[in-house]
Amino acid sequence: MAETYPVDPINRVKRKHERGHYDHATVHALLDAAALCHVAYVIDGQPICMPTLFWREGSRLYWHGSSASRMLRNLSQGEPACLTVTHFDSIVLARSGMNHSADYRSVMAFGKVRLVEDPAEKQQALTMMVDRLVPGRTAQLRPSTPQEIKATSVVMMDIEKASAKIRAKGVVDDEEDYDFPTWAERLPVRTVLGEPEPCPRLVDGIERPANLAGYRAGRPLEEAVAEAYAAAYPLGDG
Amino acid sequence: MAETYPVDPINRVKRKHERGHYDHATVHALLDAAALCHVAYVIDGQPICMPTLFWREGSRLYWHGSSASRMLRNLSQGEPACLTVTHFDSIVLARSGMNHSADYRSVMAFGKVRLVEDPAEKQQALTMMVDRLVPGRTAQLRPSTPQEIKATSVVMMDIEKASAKIRAKGVVDDEEDYDFPTWAERLPVRTVLGEPEPCPRLVDGIERPANLAGYRAGRPLEEAVAEAYAAAYPLGDG
Repeated sequence: MAETYPVDPINRVKRKHERGHYDHATVHALLDAAALCHVAYVIDGQPICMPTLFWREGSRLYWHGSSASRMLRNLSQGEPACLTVTHFDSIVLARSGMNHSADYRSVMAFGKVRLVEDPAEKQQALTMMVDRLVPGRTAQLRPSTPQEIKATSVVMMDIEKASAKIRAKGVVDDEEDYDFPTWAERLPVRTVLGEPEPCPRLVDGIERPANLAGYRAGRPLEEAVAEAYAAAYPLGDG
Repeated sequence: MAETYPVDPINRVKRKHERGHYDHATVHALLDAAALCHVAYVIDGQPICMPTLFWREGSRLYWHGSSASRMLRNLSQGEPACLTVTHFDSIVLARSGMNHSADYRSVMAFGKVRLVEDPAEKQQALTMMVDRLVPGRTAQLRPSTPQEIKATSVVMMDIEKASAKIRAKGVVDDEEDYDFPTWAERLPVRTVLGEPEPCPRLVDGIERPANLAGYRAGRPLEEAVAEAYAAAYPLGDG
């Protein structure tokens, strides 16, 4: 019930270690509430930090790209990678420069990257890439062609180590600084949905389907994404 | 006037090359509108993707960390790094799985990382780390102590190569798919400021200073950050 990722020098939260969490529940919840991540990997000695959409099944992370991508072709040999998700929650304006900070919830996940080669697993992954954001949507779409499936590469990474790091405390100053006569505040930052913009070329009579109801203007993106994830993986985590 | 970063196989936008931009104006505007970035670097062969606050002066990027950090100590030898900023603008729900996408504006900047050792440059960097978000704020704070300055490491990276990648077109389907009877939409995503939360321990009579006026509830974070940056660097880019 209280499964955790192993901790070693790579993923141990060394600085501000009270902010570190390694249990599956904390790590997975932060991953599943995000659509976007950044992946670091190395090509010819050059680190690359790439933003991409991604999702999780169990302790496996998936993302995708073009089969024509040189980067992806280079990633099929089990190269090490680090996938990071950051929920940016506030800018903290304290009474000293040193205590300026930010509230955030982040996950760093480490593992080795492989291409998904098995046709059935690839087909399933391409379905879940869409359905984890909008459950059941693939069945509502023009079916994918074999050429499209061939043109898309799906990458997977089994999480070997992971850590979550959470700061959620707003302004914290040195005790002797609270008398210093300057303004201090927490500036909340929120990532929210705007008003959905229907395609101007919709077929007459088409209505917005029920599986998009969770995506409404003003709602935090992470709330809608986490809710969709839970509906797409009703047994827990895929 | 139309300066651009050199383009080579590392930073050339290969896939969807029409989305690529290399001019300083486009790259810098996307960097200056962000407070948070992700940096990729390599420690003992392991790529690390780390979220951090950062800022730019000219073609130099700065970020900071604890002097006690093993990662930062390992970065003082001119190691290669990649700093990426991503503005996530929408989820695009098209009529086929293949045309599902996202609108975004991202920058990948490549260079070599060094610690800022010069005391005057370090002091100036610690000032601008705060003032680029809130111009003039450092002068309003309890001054930093020599111990605090010593405990903080500042990292810099001169941008050798960079590319911006922009997708801003919402739903685009294959021409023959527009008749397919399903719903398609662009779901806007916005990162905005919430209502500022004053520290409960403010000294009596302290009022919110004018240099925070740009940070008001509902405003896009990137707008407030870009405005503050422009005020902090009135001559253009530091």
